[in-house]
Amino acid sequence: MYDLLSGLSIIEASSFVASPTAGLYCAQLGAEVIRVDHKAGGLDYDRYMLTAEGRSLSWENLNRAKKSVALDLQSDEGRELLVELARATGQLITNLPVNSFLSHAAVAAGRPDLVSVRIMGWHDGRQAMDFTVNAASGYPLMTGPAEWDPVSAPPVNQLLPAWDFITGAYCAFALLAGLRHRDATGQGKELRVPLGDVAIGTVANSGAMAEMLYRGSDRERLGNAIWGAFGRDFVSGDGQRFMVAALTAKQWSALVGAFGVADEVAAVERRTGVSFATSDHHRFTHREALFALFQSAAGGIDYADLAARLTRAGATFERYRTMHEAANDPELVANNPLFGPSPANPSGFAYPAARSFANVPDEPAGDPRAAPYLGEHSEEVLSQRLGLSSGAIAALIDKGVVATSDKDKP
Amino acid sequence: MYDLLSGLSIIEASSFVASPTAGLYCAQLGAEVIRVDHKAGGLDYDRYMLTAEGRSLSWENLNRAKKSVALDLQSDEGRELLVELARATGQLITNLPVNSFLSHAAVAAGRPDLVSVRIMGWHDGRQAMDFTVNAASGYPLMTGPAEWDPVSAPPVNQLLPAWDFITGAYCAFALLAGLRHRDATGQGKELRVPLGDVAIGTVANSGAMAEMLYRGSDRERLGNAIWGAFGRDFVSGDGQRFMVAALTAKQWSALVGAFGVADEVAAVERRTGVSFATSDHHRFTHREALFALFQSAAGGIDYADLAARLTRAGATFERYRTMHEAANDPELVANNPLFGPSPANPSGFAYPAARSFANVPDEPAGDPRAAPYLGEHSEEVLSQRLGLSSGAIAALIDKGVVATSDKDKP
Repeated sequence: MYDLLSGLSIIEASSFVASPTAGLYCAQLGAEVIRVDHKAGGLDYDRYMLTAEGRSLSWENLNRAKKSVALDLQSDEGRELLVELARATGQLITNLPVNSFLSHAAVAAGRPDLVSVRIMGWHDGRQAMDFTVNAASGYPLMTGPAEWDPVSAPPVNQLLPAWDFITGAYCAFALLAGLRHRDATGQGKELRVPLGDVAIGTVANSGAMAEMLYRGSDRERLGNAIWGAFGRDFVSGDGQRFMVAALTAKQWSALVGAFGVADEVAAVERRTGVSFATSDHHRFTHREALFALFQSAAGGIDYADLAARLTRAGATFERYRTMHEAANDPELVANNPLFGPSPANPSGFAYPAARSFANVPDEPAGDPRAAPYLGEHSEEVLSQRLGLSSGAIAALIDKGVVATSDKDKP
Repeated sequence: MYDLLSGLSIIEASSFVASPTAGLYCAQLGAEVIRVDHKAGGLDYDRYMLTAEGRSLSWENLNRAKKSVALDLQSDEGRELLVELARATGQLITNLPVNSFLSHAAVAAGRPDLVSVRIMGWHDGRQAMDFTVNAASGYPLMTGPAEWDPVSAPPVNQLLPAWDFITGAYCAFALLAGLRHRDATGQGKELRVPLGDVAIGTVANSGAMAEMLYRGSDRERLGNAIWGAFGRDFVSGDGQRFMVAALTAKQWSALVGAFGVADEVAAVERRTGVSFATSDHHRFTHREALFALFQSAAGGIDYADLAARLTRAGATFERYRTMHEAANDPELVANNPLFGPSPANPSGFAYPAARSFANVPDEPAGDPRAAPYLGEHSEEVLSQRLGLSSGAIAALIDKGVVATSDKDKP
């Protein structure tokens, strides 16, 4: 683990995906991230997939390298301990509601320079999750086979909870931006990041919103074709599916060479009177003719041969894998320095563990760390952060306000 | 615009989506982000959609609030100016190759405490784009209608360039983490973020990689159903499609109440011997029976009525919109404080412009700013950052090493 954020402690009061992801990224770069949960586990504690023993593989990956404190968050005393912890550290990531006991104002009452990042649903307070903001974004009704009838075609949801992950990364950024501002000015700050705004704001940032308004209508459904450039999935002679993309002159000439279709492409150029060498626009406009001749060429070559040619030519391509294949692919996982050896996961199941996406060349990355057991660090954190004596902590445990490690839960 | 990052200057040598997004997020929070491009425009300068005048709506949204410097980056002199700008600011975001003229080592030779963030394709140097890492991730072969034949079903690409946007947000975070470390230690740092690692690493972080390895096989294709919980798209009596999600007891009871299916759900519970009230697992396992009775109820109610009921009950749901509908939806755009009035965009086309995803309650957000014309700030930046005289800059312009605003380009 790199130590870029060492010395920084963050309280994360969190569930589901976006908010834990923000904490995960900070923890993977060396911050002390203390996730505080209700003693029975947060709303995401049983999130699929569960092992036979009932341990969530989702939870143990989204909460790697964090500490865990378990409190009775339905009691005033447990809530007050969480507020005190947020005050003691001065940094908070949460998806609890704006007006909950963990509002910025409530915590900042005892810590004026608090920097908090709060993930919301929609900006107006309406509830939302990745699945629902995605429905609003417009993407599901643009997704799917090009031949589907535009009027009756169903929406196709993306499986990746992309809005959650973008929001998570953005919130990690927003937290550090808030801290940078505090370092410069001494001022605290509340930063609110609505999941719905990340979705519709990304539609805007990508240019797609302007596109819709400029055109005055929706984009046609393109299947797997790339909008405004050359790229699509093809099938090799031995039935392997792969994606190619050519958004630069270099990528295009590499593709044409590797597929061995220079003559056929030149014939299309003569027929249409355009040159494909340097124009995304022409390659996109005449995509159907080009797709047909690329597929015709691909259909006559086995994938191994084609992949070798594409690699030699410097083309940009990738074979589709099922996710099970991807998880077992040495190139992606076992031989990828992103992954390290399995730590002792709460599930007891051992598998390669991801490090931070960012790597520092020539610096040892260290081994990935495990997620905590729920409540594993309750005593340590209450002692170190709030200065509670072991007697006081024991009394809180007896009262059921504080829970310790659930390692031996049935 | 909030001023959280004011005082911070960043050189962005960048193209496509991920790298400009990292700069955009910093610019929207007050950093001075200077995008340096080849004088004819970067590889993304003509990225779709183009207006009738040939201005890219994609480019002008991904580069809002930045400054633009245009140099002949095919000449040694232009490249040296870019290196000098990176040295002068000390912060660099780029997707140029590791061993290019803009390598960390080359820039750091004159600025030892440089913090650079470099977006790569795959960790091993292979080229990649969002489209191709997505093929490797496994998601496209899990996406699409549940009734498709698992063996012959085609991949379905997600249209959102999610890996680019996650990478962009992560790189903005990584840059600030590097700066925080430099503030503490005085040390510079190169942070490399491979797009491919963001993809396979997100598969891991989500728990899906562990899921595949634990199960030893792929997940079944679920269509629009949520994995491991209750949720799917339904169609109202008047043909409106909407998504619902229930991952908590509260969300579930709200849904059951709003759909008016309490008796039918109780009947399924009696028949199956399970209780749905508090179990994602049971709701997921018996989803087909539940989906059928929810759809049956929805099919008898008009959407307006159903939406009112769902809102009253506090359910989590959202109507599917086409993207053109979304762009024109007052709730999402016109009445959403995320968006501000149109600045003078390079395209000349006026439309609502997005602010930062993060908002600070009770603090004026200011108006969104326009993207620059290519080269609009060449003279200003070369003068301010490198101390070049107006005569020296004029000479560089005459030589074709520096270009000025392309506002009046044909």
